[in-house]
Amino acid sequence: MKSERLRNLLFMICRYFANTQKKFMPGIKHGETAIEILGTIAEMQRRATDIRKEGKTIAFVPTMGYLHEGHLSLVKRGKEAADILVASIFVNPEQFGPDEDLSRYPRDPENDIRLAETAGVDILFMPEAPDLYPEGYETYVVQTDLPEHLCGLSRPVFFRGVMTIVAKLFNIVKPHLAIFGEKDYQQLAVIRKMTRDLNFDTEIIGGPTLRESDGLAMSSRNKYLSEDDRKSARVLYRCLSEAGRRVAEGETIAGRIIAESETAIRAEPDTEIDYIKICHPGTLNDVAVIDQPVVMALAVKVGGTRLIDNLVLFPPGTGEK
Amino acid sequence: MKSERLRNLLFMICRYFANTQKKFMPGIKHGETAIEILGTIAEMQRRATDIRKEGKTIAFVPTMGYLHEGHLSLVKRGKEAADILVASIFVNPEQFGPDEDLSRYPRDPENDIRLAETAGVDILFMPEAPDLYPEGYETYVVQTDLPEHLCGLSRPVFFRGVMTIVAKLFNIVKPHLAIFGEKDYQQLAVIRKMTRDLNFDTEIIGGPTLRESDGLAMSSRNKYLSEDDRKSARVLYRCLSEAGRRVAEGETIAGRIIAESETAIRAEPDTEIDYIKICHPGTLNDVAVIDQPVVMALAVKVGGTRLIDNLVLFPPGTGEK
Repeated sequence: MKSERLRNLLFMICRYFANTQKKFMPGIKHGETAIEILGTIAEMQRRATDIRKEGKTIAFVPTMGYLHEGHLSLVKRGKEAADILVASIFVNPEQFGPDEDLSRYPRDPENDIRLAETAGVDILFMPEAPDLYPEGYETYVVQTDLPEHLCGLSRPVFFRGVMTIVAKLFNIVKPHLAIFGEKDYQQLAVIRKMTRDLNFDTEIIGGPTLRESDGLAMSSRNKYLSEDDRKSARVLYRCLSEAGRRVAEGETIAGRIIAESETAIRAEPDTEIDYIKICHPGTLNDVAVIDQPVVMALAVKVGGTRLIDNLVLFPPGTGEK
Repeated sequence: MKSERLRNLLFMICRYFANTQKKFMPGIKHGETAIEILGTIAEMQRRATDIRKEGKTIAFVPTMGYLHEGHLSLVKRGKEAADILVASIFVNPEQFGPDEDLSRYPRDPENDIRLAETAGVDILFMPEAPDLYPEGYETYVVQTDLPEHLCGLSRPVFFRGVMTIVAKLFNIVKPHLAIFGEKDYQQLAVIRKMTRDLNFDTEIIGGPTLRESDGLAMSSRNKYLSEDDRKSARVLYRCLSEAGRRVAEGETIAGRIIAESETAIRAEPDTEIDYIKICHPGTLNDVAVIDQPVVMALAVKVGGTRLIDNLVLFPPGTGEK
């Protein structure tokens, strides 16, 4: 609790600095607008309305902060496609289960602001939880099918929380397009479906997964990994790329690939498999015989940290783009 | 099925007429824009975006058609408050239970278009069910508390359906304000809460209930009532106004008022009480002792037709506005 207060204090000082001292900040050319930090829903809605009235387009990258190269690549993608890039930082309590890592989820707002500014974020929206979920909050966005697969099974409130916060943020930021990482494959599928089903006038764009040099998918949660965990964690991408190779060479039996991956993961210390699935890229239904591109998705706890990753597997002749 | 096709054909002819022959229509002054009828989601979204870009405001009255004076009073209210009045007509299948009156819900698109035009509706949005709920549709807006009262108990999918279609329509029509009738008291409460919770940038306005000369609340479903039903149906408002009088005179025991209403309703032929409740206007929780303004709400089947009505009851000194 004490460290949280200290963090908040540092953050407020930092926000003050960023908002008032823009002209003295290094790297910002004279006349160029520095990053604009907004903290309230009303401010953000007003800005979004004004930007749209000016005929400009808004690209949106929602994040939970603790930014890394993966997030920044989404920012880059958004900047190419729209006039104004809005990013948000909000660790959404509604998508964490009671036994999950909400309280220890890594946060570093000062560094996030610096990274966002350098990456060219125009507006950084940093709302507070009590504003987004006031006393008596009770409205949620749900889906009946897609969440009944993969991560939805071990994280029952996760997608309800994700859809709810994304719907809220869409209503606040009013983006023409929004960019989400393909690393969270099911999340991207759920959000695409929600956007279409609820007729949000927003285009959803997936950004490719960025990886460390050893193949580990970039994730804020990688911070939790000890040095030994970090070594074990490499097995996720090793399994996926091995599966990609096997399918490209003609393997069609999903069960065989899954069994091989299980063996490889169990051979690494401190690993616990949540799921390894090969499924239809749209419906996420299990695929037994691979005769078209499929997505292989896995979730593995490494030293207590739950990591996810995925790869599309292309059978011969289905042509990886 | 045959009559539905005929109805659709008539409707298409009518739409064609309305869209192409505007200049010949009576009552439309030269140079004045006649009603604009839009049938697709994309058209409506584009128009809404353009209207907003011009700096104009949009008021929205969603309806299920079969328009009556009650609807038109909402249109009037909206026209006073915004530049462009959009009304929609869509009988939303998602808010009807399997044993409810979806297939026989009254429809009269030609007359609706005429009434809407006369009332000054600028844009009439008349979407088709397969466009709003395509194959594989699976996303819904739900609430955890408010629907667990009153109509939500006897109509379990109703508010999920209402919230979902209203969220969709808000994303399509992009209104600055939306007007809903106070006759559907719980619906208005649920939509207000949804709008606030999901941060829709739309102001919700309630329009007072319009009544026939004998007090019966106007409703498209009144069409179902036989002459005898129509006489029995008067008891709803008689109970409410009697309750209003009793509370204004100092009665504080909700149970006493409810019991008197029960007796009065049971005395009418062909009536079946769904509920009679006296509750907190915000939370809809039951109130036992009336020491502040409360809402009395009731749902009664008359000759098989489910009617609802409500009235706010003001204890002495709490001052009806």
